[in-house]
Amino acid sequence: MEMSDRFLRACRREPVDATPVWFMRQAGRYMPEYRAIREKYSLLEICQRPELAAEVTLQPVRALGVDAAILFADILLPAIPLGVGLKFAKGEGPVLLNPIRNLDDVKNLRPVNPESDLGYVMETIRILRETLNGLPLIGFCGAPFTVASYLIEGGSSREFVKTKTMMYSAPGVWHALMEKLSDVLRDYLIAQIHTGAQAVQMFDSWVGVLSPMDYETFVLPYSQKVLQAAKKENVPTIHFGTTTATLLPLMKRAGSDVIGLDWRIHLDDGWKILGDDVATQGNLDPAVLLAPLPEIKRRVEDVLQRANGRAGHIFNLGHGILQNTPVDHVKAVVDMVHEYSLSPRERVGVRKFSPLPQGEGLGVRGGTR
Amino acid sequence: MEMSDRFLRACRREPVDATPVWFMRQAGRYMPEYRAIREKYSLLEICQRPELAAEVTLQPVRALGVDAAILFADILLPAIPLGVGLKFAKGEGPVLLNPIRNLDDVKNLRPVNPESDLGYVMETIRILRETLNGLPLIGFCGAPFTVASYLIEGGSSREFVKTKTMMYSAPGVWHALMEKLSDVLRDYLIAQIHTGAQAVQMFDSWVGVLSPMDYETFVLPYSQKVLQAAKKENVPTIHFGTTTATLLPLMKRAGSDVIGLDWRIHLDDGWKILGDDVATQGNLDPAVLLAPLPEIKRRVEDVLQRANGRAGHIFNLGHGILQNTPVDHVKAVVDMVHEYSLSPRERVGVRKFSPLPQGEGLGVRGGTR
Repeated sequence: MEMSDRFLRACRREPVDATPVWFMRQAGRYMPEYRAIREKYSLLEICQRPELAAEVTLQPVRALGVDAAILFADILLPAIPLGVGLKFAKGEGPVLLNPIRNLDDVKNLRPVNPESDLGYVMETIRILRETLNGLPLIGFCGAPFTVASYLIEGGSSREFVKTKTMMYSAPGVWHALMEKLSDVLRDYLIAQIHTGAQAVQMFDSWVGVLSPMDYETFVLPYSQKVLQAAKKENVPTIHFGTTTATLLPLMKRAGSDVIGLDWRIHLDDGWKILGDDVATQGNLDPAVLLAPLPEIKRRVEDVLQRANGRAGHIFNLGHGILQNTPVDHVKAVVDMVHEYSLSPRERVGVRKFSPLPQGEGLGVRGGTR
Repeated sequence: MEMSDRFLRACRREPVDATPVWFMRQAGRYMPEYRAIREKYSLLEICQRPELAAEVTLQPVRALGVDAAILFADILLPAIPLGVGLKFAKGEGPVLLNPIRNLDDVKNLRPVNPESDLGYVMETIRILRETLNGLPLIGFCGAPFTVASYLIEGGSSREFVKTKTMMYSAPGVWHALMEKLSDVLRDYLIAQIHTGAQAVQMFDSWVGVLSPMDYETFVLPYSQKVLQAAKKENVPTIHFGTTTATLLPLMKRAGSDVIGLDWRIHLDDGWKILGDDVATQGNLDPAVLLAPLPEIKRRVEDVLQRANGRAGHIFNLGHGILQNTPVDHVKAVVDMVHEYSLSPRERVGVRKFSPLPQGEGLGVRGGTR
C-alpha cells in the first residue's frame, strides 16, 4: 500500500497503514508562500488562473506531507456565472451585489455550464492531476444551503435572519432557489469528477444554525440530490458542516461516504450517532493549532484514541486552519498523526466520558494494524 | 393559583395552570417605546438610571402579558468596576479598552462591591419589586466564560481564538481570571437576590464554541460556583447557553434548577439528555417570530407538544428577540402559549422523529392539567 492510498482507502472504510490527514484551508494566509502570491493577486485572480490555483494547491502538499490535496477555489465561484455579482471586499469576505429576494430573482439566475463557465476550475484540476504524482485530489462545492445563505443575505451572516425568513415566509421562493442551486452545484461537482477529482467534499459550513426540523424540510432533499449524483460517479463523497451534533442522523440520510465532525462533539460520540456504515473526518478545534506543541499532541492523541484505530477515520480539523496558525505546528500535527498510527502501542480503551445518555461502548472491533 | 405563580412554580417543576412564557431580550429595540427612550439615552445611561431601567423592564410586561419580568441590564456591567474600560461603540457592540492579556492584567482587576459599585442595579430591582405587583422579577449575570471571552477578545468574537489560546497556552492566567470573575459574578447575583430578584439566570451565550473537554476543564467549576451559591439563597436558578447540545450533561452538573435549550435540539431530546430532575426553558428559534402568524403557531405548538404538558417547562426563545421582530407577533406567541395550555384537548403523543440513536419514548408522565 502506497502512502497515496491512505486517504481514499479510509474514505471507503478499508484498512490503512496510518490514519490519513489533510486540513481544510490547508492552502491559505497562514503560509508565507501563499501570502507572497496574494500580495500580487486577488483571491479571485488566483482562483481564475489555473497555474496560480494549482501552485497554491501544491504549497501545503510540499510543506506539510498531507495525504490529500484539495483544489484551491472558493465555494462561491458558481455565483459568478449565476449572475449575482460576486465581489470580495477587503476584510469583509464575500459580497453579493444582487442578492436573491423573490421568485423573479431566482428565475433571473443564469444557466451555468460548468465546463465553460467554470472552465478555469477544470483546467486547474487537469494541471493538478498531472503534477500530484498519485496523491489524491479532492474537488469540492458549497452545499445548497450554505451557498443559498450567501445569495440571500448578500454576504456573511451571524443570525441568518433573511435566509430563515425566506424559508418561513416564502417557502416557494426558497424551494425554487434550492432546486436551481442544487442542480448547478451537482453539475459542477460532477464536472470536477469527470475532469479528475478523485474525491469530493460538499461544504455546508453554516448549516448548524438550523433546527433539525428546518434541516429536514428545507435542506436535506437538496443536499441529498448533490451527494447522490456524485456518488454514482464512484468517487468517495464527504459531507461537512459545523455545529451539526443534532443534525447528524439527517446528514447521514443525505448519503455521503464520509461525514465531517467538528470539535463540539467527541469523535466517538459522533461516530456512534452516525453508525458503523459511514467514515468520519475530523475533529480537532483549529484553535488548538495555536497552542504549544505538547498541548497539541495531547489533543491530537485524544482524537486518535477516540477513533481507536477503527477503519474509516480521516484526521482533519473541525473547520479551516486559522490565519495566525504557525506552519510548523500544522506540519507537526501531520507527523503526530502518522507516528501515532505507525508506532506499536497497546490499544487503549475509549474514554469513559460520554455526553450521550445511556451511553454504550463503541462496539470496538479489531484494529486495522 | 394566580397568574404570577406560573413562572416560579414551573422553575420548581410544580404543576401550573398554563405554561409560563417570557422572552430573552423582551425589552429592546423591536419595541417602539424602547426606541423612544434609546433616542434620548445611551444603553449605559438607561442601565445606570434606575428609573429608566425600571421603565424599560416594565414596557414588555405591559405590552405582552408575559409571566415574568427580567431586569434590564447588560451582562458586561460588572466590567465597569473591574476597570477594563467598557464602551458601547455604535453598531459594533461592546468594546473593552483594556483587554486581559496576562497575569498582571488579572491581578490589576479592581475588587467589586456590587452593593456600591453596581448600586444602580440594586436600586432598579427595588423599584421593580414595588411596581410589579407580584409578577416575578428575574435577575441575571453573564456566566464567567462568556464575560471572560469579552474581556480577553476586547469585544464580540466569532472564533474566540484569543480566549481559547489563553486556555491552551496560559492556563494559569485563564484559571486566575475565571476564579476572579466567578467570585465577582457570584457576589453580584447574590446581591440581586438579597435586593429582591425572585429568580436568577446565568447567561453563557457563547459557550457552545467549546468542546466538551474544554468546557469541563475550563468552565464547569466556575459556572458551578456561581450557580451553587445562588441556589443556597433559595431562589430558582436558570442556566442558559446556545449551541449546547453536546454540553448539556456537563451543564447539568453545574447545578441549576432550569436549563435553557436552543432550537438546534428538539425540546424533548434535550430534556431526555438532561433527565427528569431539571426544568427546561426554550426553545423557539427567534427568527420564527418574523414568520407569518400561522407558521409561528405551528412552531409554537410543536414546542408545546414536545414538552407534552410535563411540569417544569418555561416557554421562551432559544436566544434573544431579534431587532426587526413585529411586536404583535411576540404578543401573539404569549397568547398562543397560554391558550394552548388552557384549552382542553386530547393529549398528543410526542413526535416520533428523534436525532438520538436508540431513542426511547420520553417516559411521559401524567399531565399537569
